[in-house]
Amino acid sequence: MTSLAREDLAALDAADPLAPFRERFALPGGVIYLDGNSLGALPKAVAGRIAEVVEAEWGRDLIKSWNLNDWFTLPGRAGDKIAKLIGARPGEVVVADSTSVNLFKLLAAALKLRPGRTVIVSEPENFPTDLYVAQGLGDLLGGIELRLAEPEGLSQAIGEDVAVLMLTHVNYRTGRMHDMAGVTKQAHAAGALMLWDLAHSAGALPLDLAGAGVDLAVGCGYKYLNGGPGAPAFLHVATRLQDDVRPPLSGWMGHAAPFEFDTDYRPAEGIARNLCGTPGILSMAGLDTALDLMLEADMAAIRAKSVALGDAFAALVAQECAGHGLALASPPAATRGSQVSFRHTDGYAIMQALIDRGVIGDFRAPDLMRFGFAPLYNRFVDVYDAVAVLKDIMESRAWDAPAFHARAAVT
Amino acid sequence: MTSLAREDLAALDAADPLAPFRERFALPGGVIYLDGNSLGALPKAVAGRIAEVVEAEWGRDLIKSWNLNDWFTLPGRAGDKIAKLIGARPGEVVVADSTSVNLFKLLAAALKLRPGRTVIVSEPENFPTDLYVAQGLGDLLGGIELRLAEPEGLSQAIGEDVAVLMLTHVNYRTGRMHDMAGVTKQAHAAGALMLWDLAHSAGALPLDLAGAGVDLAVGCGYKYLNGGPGAPAFLHVATRLQDDVRPPLSGWMGHAAPFEFDTDYRPAEGIARNLCGTPGILSMAGLDTALDLMLEADMAAIRAKSVALGDAFAALVAQECAGHGLALASPPAATRGSQVSFRHTDGYAIMQALIDRGVIGDFRAPDLMRFGFAPLYNRFVDVYDAVAVLKDIMESRAWDAPAFHARAAVT
Repeated sequence: MTSLAREDLAALDAADPLAPFRERFALPGGVIYLDGNSLGALPKAVAGRIAEVVEAEWGRDLIKSWNLNDWFTLPGRAGDKIAKLIGARPGEVVVADSTSVNLFKLLAAALKLRPGRTVIVSEPENFPTDLYVAQGLGDLLGGIELRLAEPEGLSQAIGEDVAVLMLTHVNYRTGRMHDMAGVTKQAHAAGALMLWDLAHSAGALPLDLAGAGVDLAVGCGYKYLNGGPGAPAFLHVATRLQDDVRPPLSGWMGHAAPFEFDTDYRPAEGIARNLCGTPGILSMAGLDTALDLMLEADMAAIRAKSVALGDAFAALVAQECAGHGLALASPPAATRGSQVSFRHTDGYAIMQALIDRGVIGDFRAPDLMRFGFAPLYNRFVDVYDAVAVLKDIMESRAWDAPAFHARAAVT
Repeated sequence: MTSLAREDLAALDAADPLAPFRERFALPGGVIYLDGNSLGALPKAVAGRIAEVVEAEWGRDLIKSWNLNDWFTLPGRAGDKIAKLIGARPGEVVVADSTSVNLFKLLAAALKLRPGRTVIVSEPENFPTDLYVAQGLGDLLGGIELRLAEPEGLSQAIGEDVAVLMLTHVNYRTGRMHDMAGVTKQAHAAGALMLWDLAHSAGALPLDLAGAGVDLAVGCGYKYLNGGPGAPAFLHVATRLQDDVRPPLSGWMGHAAPFEFDTDYRPAEGIARNLCGTPGILSMAGLDTALDLMLEADMAAIRAKSVALGDAFAALVAQECAGHGLALASPPAATRGSQVSFRHTDGYAIMQALIDRGVIGDFRAPDLMRFGFAPLYNRFVDVYDAVAVLKDIMESRAWDAPAFHARAAVT
């Protein structure tokens, strides 16, 4: 392989059909932001939209906004936009609550949909909150087993006692991507339901939930979807299952007639029954506007650029930082999401030194440095410049300073 | 009683120690807003704070804000401000999720804290979502009874099979207020836990949860606390119970070490274990700023003005609108929250006509018109002017027009 120079990367930017999207984001100067997989950057239109909701819809129109400004239908409207991004049908997605709360709803629903089956299968490398939520539900119900299996042992783990297989499509540490259609088929062959966590997939790569026959899914609003810190999450229920879902979190917004104030719960038709309490309008409106931006882009182009950014990053680290103990922890592009991770025993300090120099990725214990690629605002030259900083830090051992070893509560 | 004139009300405004607070809110012109019990008005500082969080903390500082701007500690810091407002101890309140989701958490926790007891007691007039959540939890667990009793039958309903008594302190329809200390004592006498929903109390009147020995409570961020549409809610767990609460919604933000990414759930110390997923930072920051405003006011002064506003409103309706079929549905001030309700068979159309004239209350089926009083921004002359409009509408039968009878989805 020939050596990559900065002008090679600049040439890729010049030919990039997504390049104009970068202008649509409010990015800070002096920063190369490779952490959109943790918190997506701010779309300029979102700042304006939130200000409008605060000042005009809340401040001026007040309670009338539920009808006048369509707050009431926002969870479903934003959900339908996400459905387009993930290959689901209209009416199969709703925006609500957090990913963790939505996981609880769907795991509980799955156990009711498969009476007599008492096992939830997942993998030990799943995002911890997914496992915690299953554990909490199991403790609450009693008699539920959370069975963890490595990817290669999944087919053996999915027996006739399994109600639901719950996996995160793209692993949060390594970026390793499951074969959505194949694994879903495995679950179905055993009579189990399939629940995908799309936290690191939605907005990052093309998905086809309908084509893959996915039953249930959840995902995050503030990573690749750029909805802002703690933006509400989404959940998906395949149309064929919706009438049989009995929501465990049966709040008034999921009632068939929320404003009749009946004493008895009666679930709404369709996906809306999976709403619970009053939705967080400000953040949801911001997410809704961020979704409009993403829907302007071609998802195939997003994936192609994501792969190219990740490949360039891995190639440049190999080229520029060899001999410094950085071990690639991500698979090749075909089975990789939109991030590239490296292991290093001093990964924490190295990441702090990078952040100090304006290159922002993040660290996951014990030794993993994550670099995420958001094709709507990351450039190819960003990748080059980030690796140049990394090279300098490794060669100068700049990371080996006390300040970079002192851990904060959140990294 | 002597007749009330507008100048009597203006004199009350002139003597009102809370009058300067009105300037701190962004209120629309031409509107008398008597629906702060449904959605509180916008504090000017909140608009500025949310813009700052969007542009500086999200847009500029990005992921670093979790530490740099203390996002991580925000749920507890805002919770401690609410604790001051409701007479709870520091560390007993956290801001999280919606009221409905928090009810689920605490009801499930209460059933685990009282093993062998399988009954949840409430009243049929409780806010519907409270009953729905109990029904959903009961369906999920099986073998749980939701026993509904009228206030006068409560003591009989609380037998030794009761795990928890769940009541809303101030009734959302009539404004009728329970005796918090007395009812809590009744629950404890039967060995049950007491869970109060403070949706219509927090920020509206003095509360003393610690003094009343309350075990558990939830409340709403967007009514009298002015946190904005769908602002996160709060939950309270008495210090003595915190270590024994096993959260059913066990997400990563409630973990003892969220950023160690352990496979096994281990609840955080104290109130923090009742967090679940990633908190909605934008709305929570707005609520946090709204709480600062409320903490500047004296709660006893808020209550005194609330009572005076409600009494003036009821007296003026009696004085100005007699003979038009408006029936007072709220109790006298001593047992009333911060709202006054009237029944009328054409209440829906009358409320629409009021809103059309800029007097904003709301309607609850089948026949209830609600008028809420927010002492930080409602004036005594507002009460006079609102009743003058009501009088005109009743005398002219202006409400009896087709447009005012056509119901929208949300009222």
